[in-house]
Amino acid sequence: MKAVILAAGEGRRIGAPRKGRPKPLMRLLGLPLILRSVLTLKEAGIKDIVVVVGYRGDLIKERIGDGRRYGVRITYVENPNWKEGNALSLLSARGKVGKRFLLLMADHVFSPEIIRRLSLRRPAPGEAIVAIDSSPAEYIDMEDATKVLLKEGIVRGVGKELKDYNAVDCGAFMITEEVMEYAEKVVEAGKDSLNHVMNSLSMEGRLKAFDIGEEFWIDVDTEEALKIAEKLLLNNLIKPTDGFISRVLNRPVSKRITRWLVNTSLTPNTLSIISFVICLISAALFSIGNYISFLIGGLLAQFTSVLDGCDGEVARLKFQSSRYGAWLDAVLDRYGDAAIVLGIIYGLWNYSANPNVWLVGYVALVGSLVSSYTATKYDELIRKTRDSTWRFGRDTRLFLVMVFSILNELYLFLVFIGVLSNLVSLRRLYIMRKATV
Amino acid sequence: MKAVILAAGEGRRIGAPRKGRPKPLMRLLGLPLILRSVLTLKEAGIKDIVVVVGYRGDLIKERIGDGRRYGVRITYVENPNWKEGNALSLLSARGKVGKRFLLLMADHVFSPEIIRRLSLRRPAPGEAIVAIDSSPAEYIDMEDATKVLLKEGIVRGVGKELKDYNAVDCGAFMITEEVMEYAEKVVEAGKDSLNHVMNSLSMEGRLKAFDIGEEFWIDVDTEEALKIAEKLLLNNLIKPTDGFISRVLNRPVSKRITRWLVNTSLTPNTLSIISFVICLISAALFSIGNYISFLIGGLLAQFTSVLDGCDGEVARLKFQSSRYGAWLDAVLDRYGDAAIVLGIIYGLWNYSANPNVWLVGYVALVGSLVSSYTATKYDELIRKTRDSTWRFGRDTRLFLVMVFSILNELYLFLVFIGVLSNLVSLRRLYIMRKATV
Repeated sequence: MKAVILAAGEGRRIGAPRKGRPKPLMRLLGLPLILRSVLTLKEAGIKDIVVVVGYRGDLIKERIGDGRRYGVRITYVENPNWKEGNALSLLSARGKVGKRFLLLMADHVFSPEIIRRLSLRRPAPGEAIVAIDSSPAEYIDMEDATKVLLKEGIVRGVGKELKDYNAVDCGAFMITEEVMEYAEKVVEAGKDSLNHVMNSLSMEGRLKAFDIGEEFWIDVDTEEALKIAEKLLLNNLIKPTDGFISRVLNRPVSKRITRWLVNTSLTPNTLSIISFVICLISAALFSIGNYISFLIGGLLAQFTSVLDGCDGEVARLKFQSSRYGAWLDAVLDRYGDAAIVLGIIYGLWNYSANPNVWLVGYVALVGSLVSSYTATKYDELIRKTRDSTWRFGRDTRLFLVMVFSILNELYLFLVFIGVLSNLVSLRRLYIMRKATV
Repeated sequence: MKAVILAAGEGRRIGAPRKGRPKPLMRLLGLPLILRSVLTLKEAGIKDIVVVVGYRGDLIKERIGDGRRYGVRITYVENPNWKEGNALSLLSARGKVGKRFLLLMADHVFSPEIIRRLSLRRPAPGEAIVAIDSSPAEYIDMEDATKVLLKEGIVRGVGKELKDYNAVDCGAFMITEEVMEYAEKVVEAGKDSLNHVMNSLSMEGRLKAFDIGEEFWIDVDTEEALKIAEKLLLNNLIKPTDGFISRVLNRPVSKRITRWLVNTSLTPNTLSIISFVICLISAALFSIGNYISFLIGGLLAQFTSVLDGCDGEVARLKFQSSRYGAWLDAVLDRYGDAAIVLGIIYGLWNYSANPNVWLVGYVALVGSLVSSYTATKYDELIRKTRDSTWRFGRDTRLFLVMVFSILNELYLFLVFIGVLSNLVSLRRLYIMRKATV
């Protein structure tokens, strides 16, 4: 299946012409808007993309190219009449698309889930499907939005000026080839916007709706909308597996760092390595064995915990996620954890000469590593029943390192981790038993 | 889909009547033959089973019951004429089966893979499929076997006395309802064995073949065949993920222990716990810190490594595998590993008072746990490219514990494990990188 992205507009409201580049090339968290659409399509499995250009199409072609370096195939179509209605842009793609295709606006930002789900829909021949939002968030500009009147899943009217409506058009469609022919007739009749086409189609009962539910989308028409889009994408980074500390303490900070990092050329894997090196520095500080070194070591440990979120965040925002990256991160985390525990053991040994620290430290070390091991196995086996509150993951461990460092009670930390992390593994065994007997 | 098991025969050749129980109740590695067929069918997803009984059907019903405790539904059909041809047994199941069903002989032992694959076949209406072995192993009794003549995937003749043949009938079929009607006509014409029915069917070109390939099967007709079946099932326990030590040293021993264990009531999970307790005893011995305790500790470590195979072996042979069991085993293995390394460190510290053992031991401990962690992640992510030679798994580690204990070089063991296990994790990172970039 192919997709068509309409990228012919000028973007006057956002001041694109003044800045000398068309709106599709405006950057959002490190990526031009249009590249974000392209990579979202790729994630949904659509690798054959037609881009309709108009205003400064040369700049878009130069920036994005034939798509090969992004693992997709992009062909360009010119719409010389881009100043007129955008149905003309759609029609310029005629003959380049198959029986059905996805249609996106280059200046709309979607949660990738919307595109993925829409791409799985199968419209009947002669029909189209429009993604609609039946409970638009307060940041959606209702004045400028295209309204939709929905009755029993079928659209009965489309338009900016619609008085009677119950949903908003999100700017993503599934179109069939018959609808392309139909669009041509509508345009010939003098109505040249996509809204005209969709409205006519809806009058005939041929426009179905796909409700996006709780997912987010926004039409990036203004500088303000661009900022909101940034915020939406950053908020979307919270993962269901995030532990309490991660959710409440680390993500809010890491999001801010990530917002800056996406504009650098640092790759997620480089970030994983930087985070690991900071772990080693923290461990080295602990091993010195005095309160000041404990204190700085503890603060660094919490910092590396925050930074540990950034690699994944940058990866997701810039579509650079990879299985290798996830793995590198996981393995470096284990070595980082082990280094910090060793640093603490060695530091306490220097500090107090208490030989028990070795034994207590080993229990903490084993507990920490085995609980990461059981977490992996546990997630793999019973994904549904997992609850993040009891994870006692790396975020909690490193946060406790900091707290106990500040209190100068690192020996207690080792005891604490030793008891808790092993209990967590035992609890997982117990839950697994109940869940699978 | 249902399955029919023919279990009406007497089993005179194997001396069943003399022992007072029908052949389907003869025990093979802890399970009656017929129960093995039932549980194999269950594993292939077939939970609705019709058992045709004749000779001492009362004993079979009493032993197996309605199948509820095995998670299947068993209905019994009596064939009062069990002394005559076995096609009569098949016909007694008429009206109890659907459009197509699997047909097994209770006294045949199959690799579960044969049943699983055969159950996925779809015969055309009016046709049947027979599982055939085109390169029978030397233990197959060719005199007693039913021969098959195969031409281009279609059977052209079936019979014990067939002169011209190129395969052997394995005693497993997929039958359609039309073939049941056909069988009735063949029996009415006076030919009352399954071989007669299949031969007639083949004459009409309506019997297709399913080649079992390299999988094993055997018709358990004699005491000798029973022993061979036992051997085949035990040899089938070797896993593709087995490391070198496991394959060459541990399995041959664990198989023998397992052959005994299946006749006890010890469950796989109990065996996992026993193996773990022996690990802890080994660790305690190491911690004492003299050569004799090292020696016994080392031998026990290797023994627990062998025993570690038995829980899984018993589970597979008695169809008691569970996700919880696999997990319990894995988690106990990690704690067992950690206990032994800690025991060695403590023992060496007692023995030599060399403070370096703590640091070296720490590296070994981390290496051993992280390499188990990476093994899980690695298997999960790239199952195909994994090669068992480089696993450096638990089997190798515990074998080395024994070797270095005997040599009284446990310090060297820690160095060795520390270097090797961490290198293995690094190698996995490298391979992952190449495989997924």
